[in-house]
Amino acid sequence: MKLFPLHAHEIASLTQGEILGDANTLITGIAPIESAQAGDLSFIAQSRFLEYLHKTLAAAIFVDRKSELSAELRCTLIRVANPYLAFVQVLKRYVPLPQTAIGIHPTAQIGKGARLAANVAIGPLAIISEDCEIGEDVQIGPQCYIGARTRIGANTMLFQGVHVGHEVQIGSNVIVQYGAVIGSDGFGYVPHEGKYHKIPHLGTVVLEDEVEIGANCCIDRGTFGETRLSRGVKLDNLVHVAHNVFIGENTVIAAQTGISGSTTIGRDVTIAGQVGFVGHIKIGDRAILGAQAGVTKSVKAGIMVSGYPAREHNKAKREEAALRYLPDLLKRVRALEKMLKTGGQSSQIALPENAQDDTEERL
Amino acid sequence: MKLFPLHAHEIASLTQGEILGDANTLITGIAPIESAQAGDLSFIAQSRFLEYLHKTLAAAIFVDRKSELSAELRCTLIRVANPYLAFVQVLKRYVPLPQTAIGIHPTAQIGKGARLAANVAIGPLAIISEDCEIGEDVQIGPQCYIGARTRIGANTMLFQGVHVGHEVQIGSNVIVQYGAVIGSDGFGYVPHEGKYHKIPHLGTVVLEDEVEIGANCCIDRGTFGETRLSRGVKLDNLVHVAHNVFIGENTVIAAQTGISGSTTIGRDVTIAGQVGFVGHIKIGDRAILGAQAGVTKSVKAGIMVSGYPAREHNKAKREEAALRYLPDLLKRVRALEKMLKTGGQSSQIALPENAQDDTEERL
Amino acid sequence: MKLFPLHAHEIASLTQGEILGDANTLITGIAPIESAQAGDLSFIAQSRFLEYLHKTLAAAIFVDRKSELSAELRCTLIRVANPYLAFVQVLKRYVPLPQTAIGIHPTAQIGKGARLAANVAIGPLAIISEDCEIGEDVQIGPQCYIGARTRIGANTMLFQGVHVGHEVQIGSNVIVQYGAVIGSDGFGYVPHEGKYHKIPHLGTVVLEDEVEIGANCCIDRGTFGETRLSRGVKLDNLVHVAHNVFIGENTVIAAQTGISGSTTIGRDVTIAGQVGFVGHIKIGDRAILGAQAGVTKSVKAGIMVSGYPAREHNKAKREEAALRYLPDLLKRVRALEKMLKTGGQSSQIALPENAQDDTEERL
Repeated sequence: MKLFPLHAHEIASLTQGEILGDANTLITGIAPIESAQAGDLSFIAQSRFLEYLHKTLAAAIFVDRKSELSAELRCTLIRVANPYLAFVQVLKRYVPLPQTAIGIHPTAQIGKGARLAANVAIGPLAIISEDCEIGEDVQIGPQCYIGARTRIGANTMLFQGVHVGHEVQIGSNVIVQYGAVIGSDGFGYVPHEGKYHKIPHLGTVVLEDEVEIGANCCIDRGTFGETRLSRGVKLDNLVHVAHNVFIGENTVIAAQTGISGSTTIGRDVTIAGQVGFVGHIKIGDRAILGAQAGVTKSVKAGIMVSGYPAREHNKAKREEAALRYLPDLLKRVRALEKMLKTGGQSSQIALPENAQDDTEERL
Repeated sequence: MKLFPLHAHEIASLTQGEILGDANTLITGIAPIESAQAGDLSFIAQSRFLEYLHKTLAAAIFVDRKSELSAELRCTLIRVANPYLAFVQVLKRYVPLPQTAIGIHPTAQIGKGARLAANVAIGPLAIISEDCEIGEDVQIGPQCYIGARTRIGANTMLFQGVHVGHEVQIGSNVIVQYGAVIGSDGFGYVPHEGKYHKIPHLGTVVLEDEVEIGANCCIDRGTFGETRLSRGVKLDNLVHVAHNVFIGENTVIAAQTGISGSTTIGRDVTIAGQVGFVGHIKIGDRAILGAQAGVTKSVKAGIMVSGYPAREHNKAKREEAALRYLPDLLKRVRALEKMLKTGGQSSQIALPENAQDDTEERL
Repeated sequence: MKLFPLHAHEIASLTQGEILGDANTLITGIAPIESAQAGDLSFIAQSRFLEYLHKTLAAAIFVDRKSELSAELRCTLIRVANPYLAFVQVLKRYVPLPQTAIGIHPTAQIGKGARLAANVAIGPLAIISEDCEIGEDVQIGPQCYIGARTRIGANTMLFQGVHVGHEVQIGSNVIVQYGAVIGSDGFGYVPHEGKYHKIPHLGTVVLEDEVEIGANCCIDRGTFGETRLSRGVKLDNLVHVAHNVFIGENTVIAAQTGISGSTTIGRDVTIAGQVGFVGHIKIGDRAILGAQAGVTKSVKAGIMVSGYPAREHNKAKREEAALRYLPDLLKRVRALEKMLKTGGQSSQIALPENAQDDTEERL
């Protein structure tokens, strides 16, 4: 990735870094440490990459302020609080992403009463329905759809082809990727005489500031009330969030996870991929939910759970490990029973060979 | 949710209810019992909500005709056969949902030979391909796509951005939510000399009357013949239905479930979220499939299964519970073995009856 | 499915088949063996369908060149190397699928500098962004979006409503179904002081020749570098492929599988539905991954794994089978312990402390 040439001291200044080496080193590109070439700026965020320091061709490298590194290197070091974050700051400043051109494309449809702030970018064939409010510097990608009376805060970016229903509230600095659906009806029916009668969904969805929604996710609106994703929540692709779910601040959710109706999830929770939740449960703050976990009851704050049904992670791992010995255990118990039945002095009877196991050490 | 003011007797008349209390009570809004305010109409469908009866501010409440309730309440009761259903009837009658404006938007594309019945609503930038038939009162949302020769029955509603392939048959009173795909090609290939050769998919999809399809679902067409969702089938978001699947009447399927090719599912089946099916199996009527179940063989009518591989639910629960003791059991058996190897005469002790098992043959 | 009338020898000539019976048999339709009618061409690919040979009304049937079949049949046999493939060849030759009309629809948007080769078909309301390159005979369906500087090879077909980001590379003879997303940003953040900072995704996606992507799939671009699906990879619906994943040639992946970041998958791998992978692992060539497997570590070439956590398939099956006996085993061990404690001379032997459990009450 080429950069307009910069000196190391300019990079250090942007990232509040401290230079170790030549402050005038010329930087002409940017790359991860494994693939960095001459002239590149790179970073080392984990100690397992430190080995690259001595063989890389990179011109300058962000390193952790706390790591003690010899100055006897060919390259310039820039010491910062968070090397990966510093690297990202440089990317954001100097490697602009493609943007929808500012202004309203002539093929976009703008409904009656819609209010568009300054510097909005509305892509071709996008539809902004009546009475929407679109904040400053918002980018609405091509072919997006924004339902009636929806409000979108400043600096939010919708990729192409996003589906947003009516009366949804989207905050500032939100990102919604291709094909995501915000504001579908929840899966709610009244069963009566063998048929399912649809419950109208009159609620809404609230995406607070700095939320990010992955491609082809689906966020249902509340039946009444709202489905709320709090500030800083991040969703990977193909995540399902049902009606009236609440997700606390800075919780991250990996791909293909499904959250059932009226579930309450705390803040700073980490949810891996393909996790499923039954409805109406509570997940405490800072909990960690392992991949494919089937969460059938509430989880306390700070706990890691995994497996189906989800249980405390170390317990789940012990049980899974023990399961490996179960086929053998069946044989051993049978041997014990036979021994006791046919008896005499059991001390003379040899145990089956496989009875000498190593479970004690390994479990 | 505000309503145009109505008297309790008008509500009772709409819902065939019987009033207990003041028939002239004025109703000005509608809300669930937990959040009902003065003037609101609400409902109590489950006995655990009965406690609200004495503290709610609601003006009138739907209650079950069969429940015996004291008339010493501040609010008016409306006794009906199904309180939640009555509440939904009022919502549908008095709280209109946003609709696509009737008529064909000037930016919609209507193909040659397409026949559109009276009162259809075709949203902006929608495409109706050649020789389609669209029934009365059908709403096709903005940016929808309807492939050639597809037929859609009366009063069906497609949300925005729905993808419908060619020659699909959609019944009356069907709802398809944002981004759903009806009529994709199935995942079928002939392997030959290390490569996969695509099988053309010449079949179709049939959605019978009153089917509902959630956001971003995918329903594949038959290879030959059809994929059929019978009357009243309801799909949550992100459900996958493969080629030549048959789903019986009033079966409900929660989010992210995947149904493999040529699977036959009975009527009134309940399928929870993230369930997976191998292909070519049969699920009997009224079966219940627990969340995340991995269904590897046919399931009999009326049976509940869960777990991976899916098995009779009570059995699965017993096994999961037993698994909790397995790490401990390993230690206990080791202790028994040690004891018997070193120990006294056990031959005098009779074994319990259940010790005679057939595990040796079966494992 | 009706065909223009053909003689058996014409079909044999197309498929390099050898006729057993009347070479002049007239063929007027095509159908699977279970539903073939008089005049139809059909095929038998598996021996379990051989029973149909004597009762079918079909006029001609493809059979395996290696199978020895009596010539005393009413129908004509066409002996070929691969009967299903021969059948597919006839379908492809004589049953044309609906196509987007050749040429650029007047409502399509073509960006500045985009280069379109001969015979392209660009559907209504599609967007081809600036500086794209579209190869010969490419079909871009209605309402598709192709981001800036993306390249698409000859004879590739995008169904309606496909989302392709900027600078993506798509090979020749690729198929992408409805609603699929190619080139979304990966799920990458730098955590810093309790917040997640988005990592710009500067990499790309490469789909090599003959790749097929199912409906509503999501393929993320690399953070740096690329996400690559090699020649002949086939994805079913709703599959998630994260940033920087590599998938080898002719690997097939069933619906709703999710592949985490930087995972490397070999060639000729078979991945069933709803499989999940942790990131940064390697799956060897020709490995087979069972449905719903939770793959937590690398898998060697040629191995079949299943279950959660994924382990060698036969082992997993043995353990699952053994689990059926576990509730009973708990009782049996308890009986043994009681026997040894109370009985004969074994009473002198102290049981280990943890042997006093409460399973009897709780199970």
